[in-house]
Amino acid sequence: MAKIEVTAEPGVPFIDTARQFDAPRDLLFRAFTDPELLVQWLGPRKYTMKIDRYDVRDGGSWRYLHQGADGNEFGFHGVFHGTPSPEGMVQTFEFEGVPGHVSLDAIVFEERDGRTVVRSHSVYQSVEDRDAMVQSGMAEGMDEGYDRLEELIARLAPVHS
Amino acid sequence: MAKIEVTAEPGVPFIDTARQFDAPRDLLFRAFTDPELLVQWLGPRKYTMKIDRYDVRDGGSWRYLHQGADGNEFGFHGVFHGTPSPEGMVQTFEFEGVPGHVSLDAIVFEERDGRTVVRSHSVYQSVEDRDAMVQSGMAEGMDEGYDRLEELIARLAPVHS
Repeated sequence: MAKIEVTAEPGVPFIDTARQFDAPRDLLFRAFTDPELLVQWLGPRKYTMKIDRYDVRDGGSWRYLHQGADGNEFGFHGVFHGTPSPEGMVQTFEFEGVPGHVSLDAIVFEERDGRTVVRSHSVYQSVEDRDAMVQSGMAEGMDEGYDRLEELIARLAPVHS
Repeated sequence: MAKIEVTAEPGVPFIDTARQFDAPRDLLFRAFTDPELLVQWLGPRKYTMKIDRYDVRDGGSWRYLHQGADGNEFGFHGVFHGTPSPEGMVQTFEFEGVPGHVSLDAIVFEERDGRTVVRSHSVYQSVEDRDAMVQSGMAEGMDEGYDRLEELIARLAPVHS
């Protein structure tokens, strides 16, 4: 199982990630945009995900909550810039626990020989915001979500191996 | 007439600007959000501004065109993240002449003693994108727009001097 590659150079407010999946691009795009699929993989296993809104279109807004076993909820929201497509999607992102800190996330889906690399490029409003996101364990949580995404993909379209 | 202050440190993808206006915050917020006022000041004098859409709300999308004397049009579009208010507004920004390069702009209106400082903090997806924006003469165009905004404000609410 390939793990996520994370790049976060010092002194700049960027986080880049990449991970390869054994599935075509269209299937990954579905998993990122269909709320019924999204709740099955996004984020660490310890949280239950609830989608408040997920309006996948230019200007559409999205909001979801992660609920822990103790009942505590963590909200996140943003808007889509441009029309999301299997080539990629751009959206804003804000964690409601620390309001006023927004990032701009671009995701691209690169397919080759039936496999797809999902790349994200996130830019923060300050290097401090970026560092805080790295220190929050964002990459680990994202990778655990991607493990679950890999499992979901295997259920949706079993791969001959 | 106060000019714009621009900060663009090397090696980071930020542009910060500040300019003071002799008007209360609410009036400036109106000038930034009422399409009928916006077309009277945003951008250099040599362009005629046409607003395609300007939906000032969380997830609302905006698009405007600057038309030169030769008839050439330059389009810009984005979406609002969060609900714009006299305290501030956050939005995405993309120049349609160079698609695929998006920035995240935050504007705050700081009022003191009846005067208001308008501050913008823009973050780009790369330092190269930021440098290209600086080199495009963005600050000069913005300042010329702000000169026009100052004139508009004087017409809307004559200041005793």
